[in-house]
Amino acid sequence: MIVDISTDVGAAVRELREVLGTKVHTDVPTRASRAHDRSHHDWSIPEAVVSCTTTEDVSCALAVCFRHGVAVVPIGAGTGLEGGANSSGGNVCIDLSPMNRILHLGVADLDATVQAGVMKSALNAAAAPHGLCFPAGPGVDASFGGMASTRASGTNAVAYGTMRANVLGLTVVLADGTVVTTGGLARKSSAGYDLTALFVGSEGTLGIITEVSVRLYGIPATTATAVVPFPTLGAAVSSVSAAIAAGVPLSRIELMDDVMVGAMNSYSDLSLKEAPTLLVEFEGGPASVAEHVDRFEAIASGRGALGYEFAADPRRRDELWQARHDALPAAAALRPGSSTWSTDVCVPISRLADCIEETQADIAAEGVLAPIAGHVGDGNFHLAFVVDTEVTAEREAAQAVNERLVRRAVAMGGTCTGEHGIGTGKRAALRLEHGEGVRVMEAIKAALDPRQLLNPGKVL
Amino acid sequence: MIVDISTDVGAAVRELREVLGTKVHTDVPTRASRAHDRSHHDWSIPEAVVSCTTTEDVSCALAVCFRHGVAVVPIGAGTGLEGGANSSGGNVCIDLSPMNRILHLGVADLDATVQAGVMKSALNAAAAPHGLCFPAGPGVDASFGGMASTRASGTNAVAYGTMRANVLGLTVVLADGTVVTTGGLARKSSAGYDLTALFVGSEGTLGIITEVSVRLYGIPATTATAVVPFPTLGAAVSSVSAAIAAGVPLSRIELMDDVMVGAMNSYSDLSLKEAPTLLVEFEGGPASVAEHVDRFEAIASGRGALGYEFAADPRRRDELWQARHDALPAAAALRPGSSTWSTDVCVPISRLADCIEETQADIAAEGVLAPIAGHVGDGNFHLAFVVDTEVTAEREAAQAVNERLVRRAVAMGGTCTGEHGIGTGKRAALRLEHGEGVRVMEAIKAALDPRQLLNPGKVL
Repeated sequence: MIVDISTDVGAAVRELREVLGTKVHTDVPTRASRAHDRSHHDWSIPEAVVSCTTTEDVSCALAVCFRHGVAVVPIGAGTGLEGGANSSGGNVCIDLSPMNRILHLGVADLDATVQAGVMKSALNAAAAPHGLCFPAGPGVDASFGGMASTRASGTNAVAYGTMRANVLGLTVVLADGTVVTTGGLARKSSAGYDLTALFVGSEGTLGIITEVSVRLYGIPATTATAVVPFPTLGAAVSSVSAAIAAGVPLSRIELMDDVMVGAMNSYSDLSLKEAPTLLVEFEGGPASVAEHVDRFEAIASGRGALGYEFAADPRRRDELWQARHDALPAAAALRPGSSTWSTDVCVPISRLADCIEETQADIAAEGVLAPIAGHVGDGNFHLAFVVDTEVTAEREAAQAVNERLVRRAVAMGGTCTGEHGIGTGKRAALRLEHGEGVRVMEAIKAALDPRQLLNPGKVL
Repeated sequence: MIVDISTDVGAAVRELREVLGTKVHTDVPTRASRAHDRSHHDWSIPEAVVSCTTTEDVSCALAVCFRHGVAVVPIGAGTGLEGGANSSGGNVCIDLSPMNRILHLGVADLDATVQAGVMKSALNAAAAPHGLCFPAGPGVDASFGGMASTRASGTNAVAYGTMRANVLGLTVVLADGTVVTTGGLARKSSAGYDLTALFVGSEGTLGIITEVSVRLYGIPATTATAVVPFPTLGAAVSSVSAAIAAGVPLSRIELMDDVMVGAMNSYSDLSLKEAPTLLVEFEGGPASVAEHVDRFEAIASGRGALGYEFAADPRRRDELWQARHDALPAAAALRPGSSTWSTDVCVPISRLADCIEETQADIAAEGVLAPIAGHVGDGNFHLAFVVDTEVTAEREAAQAVNERLVRRAVAMGGTCTGEHGIGTGKRAALRLEHGEGVRVMEAIKAALDPRQLLNPGKVL
């Protein structure tokens, strides 16, 4: 069903200007500034940037580009890590960052509807006076369109789920400019195909998400953090498994290896023991939190924990979590002048300790610097490669470690990316992981974007 | 892309016999017994039933039917309520109920992989000795293939989510017999399109689910139940909203109207107050449960609760929950000789009291008998029409109430079905609810089943 049509980007840009006026930018600084995410992957500047403020803008822009056979690449906050928002040249960039309005805040229903460019921090600021929050998503601030498009998660997915669980409905613009709404504000539905889940994680290749409805949660009455160093990675991971199986509710369970703890100590002026360490958070009523802190301490000490710092003081808690969220710059600071690039995989938790230990051995053998931090309750972990990307040998060494990491994770029954997405960086990994399933994805792509104009070269 | 081919069901059945031997049944009693679910919707007997025990059987059967242009209709336990597993004649029935093997029980990872015909009770029996359970799914025992196919949920979706949240991966046989695996055993993934979520809830119209990987949970240390009657539906519902917003974790929150409480009293020999009543369950450690029971009692009494029976005794708890699960026969017993048919909708919780009260008024005006019970934490509720289906006027009155119920729920921002699915019964409702979105569903259907052989006439 691929229809050959002539591509005329010049004509498309002229028509976009006629219809959308000053929202269309062709100056090089704007085009360059919206051409790429935070990854190390290749990009080229787009022919034009359309600064959209409404779903109608996006619809209009896509209709024009469709008629002229011009590819479109959406971008929001640009915080992606696998090149999913990178322009490749010859395309029009659909800039969703001006779509920054909160359209609905449902205090009674614990839900909200936001435009795609709204940042997580902005929704949390609006929800906090009502005692509500949106806890899901990455440590870095990011836009709702981007978080939905990459099926993002972060430190508290173990308690609140990923964007898969937290998106109730979407407004999506299809390749030809048609606007579709999916899902709704009901908490659950068995009405037909789950289009919401299909578009979440599709990285703009099936349609461009312009509005996102999400769940909100009550801000917990009590929050406490524990820092627990262990003699081995295995002891740390098995403590987490045991706590989950015992039904001890943990709202965040972060694991740092000794190298990452060292980086955090230097960068954030901490004096944590440089050992595999869990940073655990508990939430709830005061009696519940006290009960869960005690139960977790018993489990951890039974597995040889080297200490148990219980941080109830909000300042100390913030200090610890800020240090965790600063893990990437902390890693970069280990080697001034270098760049970091971050990769992630996710494995069944029973394989997590093995997967990390084999990866640490590979890192040592290859001679690269790559501290590890992970969302251990999900089996998800990150390597932060600290490399001089100008040095080919370093880049290649990191790439080789990354490829072996992906193979190892998939062989252990896991996935090539837990939360970063496929973008341009992990397309081969997707085929390794999903085999025949990729043909089903291709059939869906061909059905919804027969001219291959939506974010081409991403995911598939 | 619809390909015209001749349909030769006789030749297909002969070839199925050659390849699958005694697994192919053509006797009328078997064909009739596997021709329909528990709904009141129309059905006709299939030309043959293939009793499948492996994914390969299903693949082989679908490949034969594909070549001969013969439609296939999958069925498992047959507990559906919207005709999703009903044969329409001229088709081959794919019986998945013999696929009853538990393939993997992941005690360390809290996961399991089962064949599609495994019943929820069977997995729970196998998991219990390890301290684990599968809490999701309906009150009635059902098969995993059916629960996944209809995106089922039940009383504790508010705490554990629906099948959408609990299915980690699938094995699916496509229209031409190709076998695809989706998802995996990682707890989360951003790797490509979420095919798992697409097949969950697609009711066998995009592929036939043969294996299901699901999350398991630790059996809670402590469980307690409270029975709380209220002066009005609104007071009951607002107590639930307030508790959720305050972060009081409730593992089940059931609402019965006064008519349903009366039916349960008679059928299950209880003496509950005949008022709008919540049946609430709390889980966790002993201190947490005690804290949550107290917090909920304070919220309920602040809204005028007429009583607060706290049932910690397991026998009393079982008695209450069994009565709730027997709501449908209890409703039927209100009028001996009648049939019940059950419908469900789901609305944002802020609209739930209005939606139920308007529906009660409509029931009264139409003069039908239809007690109401619901999973109030999700905004999901059921009407159990108690009708003599031989009497056209009664059937039509129930249908009219049902149609108005669907319109009311959709107008309130809700969905035409929270957990029963579309089947044959709610196809018009799907179009009312999703509009342009149905065209996207049709495009996906055409891409994956161009000959329209998979469970035709269902969903779309």
